[in-house]
Amino acid sequence: MEMHHETQLDKELRELKNKLIRMAAIAEAMIDQTITELVNRNEQYAPEVSKEEEELNRLQIDIDEQVVTMLATRQPVASDLRAILAATKINSELERIGDLAINITGNVHTLVQEPPLKPLIDIPRMADLARKMVNDSVKAFMTGDNDLARSVILADDEVDALKDQILRELLTYIMADPRATERALALILISRHLERIGDHATNIAEDVIYITQGRDVRHPKTPR
Amino acid sequence: MEMHHETQLDKELRELKNKLIRMAAIAEAMIDQTITELVNRNEQYAPEVSKEEEELNRLQIDIDEQVVTMLATRQPVASDLRAILAATKINSELERIGDLAINITGNVHTLVQEPPLKPLIDIPRMADLARKMVNDSVKAFMTGDNDLARSVILADDEVDALKDQILRELLTYIMADPRATERALALILISRHLERIGDHATNIAEDVIYITQGRDVRHPKTPR
Repeated sequence: MEMHHETQLDKELRELKNKLIRMAAIAEAMIDQTITELVNRNEQYAPEVSKEEEELNRLQIDIDEQVVTMLATRQPVASDLRAILAATKINSELERIGDLAINITGNVHTLVQEPPLKPLIDIPRMADLARKMVNDSVKAFMTGDNDLARSVILADDEVDALKDQILRELLTYIMADPRATERALALILISRHLERIGDHATNIAEDVIYITQGRDVRHPKTPR
Repeated sequence: MEMHHETQLDKELRELKNKLIRMAAIAEAMIDQTITELVNRNEQYAPEVSKEEEELNRLQIDIDEQVVTMLATRQPVASDLRAILAATKINSELERIGDLAINITGNVHTLVQEPPLKPLIDIPRMADLARKMVNDSVKAFMTGDNDLARSVILADDEVDALKDQILRELLTYIMADPRATERALALILISRHLERIGDHATNIAEDVIYITQGRDVRHPKTPR
């Protein structure tokens, strides 16, 4: 009976992790799709992206419900407990990454109505970096890879630097021609949304380090 | 012994909630101080705000550690369990509100170097609204007041509307005089930071409704 109980917790932990992997895959797809729309100057993925956001919302609630049930019925301790707690923080981060992808589609909608302002190089690069940060942060959680989590935190500096570079460049466009203001601002906002996606991946990486690594592990008073 | 055990959990829950109240008070103070600096055109609170951010970081980790310990040693169920889970989401939101206040101080630093662009009315109003949302969201958690949580979610629309209004107005300043670009952008960014503070308060309110209200409450298989 004790054996069976433990196996059941392992199975539920695997389910929980699979749901997070699915959330991360959806969030990454949304980033790719919105930036592809921006580069191709169309809104081909609009219906798909909107369905993906709903799916992220469902999965977030699903994970929270599973966490409550697992904590109440399995009473996990030590690393299992910390993994479950991290899951309930990470699902919120992934859901918000989806919200930011939706924000990007709003700016893309503005941009496709107007002639292109400039060739896009830094924003697609920033999007690739941010998407990789999301992937790596969740992978770090799955594998318990502390070094990978730390690399995500370091990558955030690169994303921030790109955001500043994009801002400086676009300000020169506005200064040169105030009619460029709306389009330049839409691109500035896209770079901010991507920066925030990087921030959420960084939050996940920090959760991996601070929660799952159990910096402050205390042994339960009531061993099972 | 069972009685004593329960009392200990209650005491720890009270401590946990007090730490969240303290985090909320600090986050609110940071909003007030940064916007006061903006209005007064100085950086009088800079050392204080930076200490407050550190205190928020400490409290966030402190709460997460307490949550792990409480779950492992007290094995709470039902509404206690949900309150503890909500606490570990809410502390992250409050910590990020502090980060956004720090972002505002960066924009204030830019603005105090230059002559004032315009009288500030909407931004202080937006800051008041955002600060009240933070207060109400945490109060809703403390008192389990679902209606108050819902009012926070509704207030977010007002904050978003102010943000759009501020953006439209400042764009006209840029169009009229490109030399206003940097200052206008700093004010636009402050309004975005305030909007995000409202988003975090909304996240807290949603956590109150979805987690602490136990929309999907399941009874534990192993009653204590």
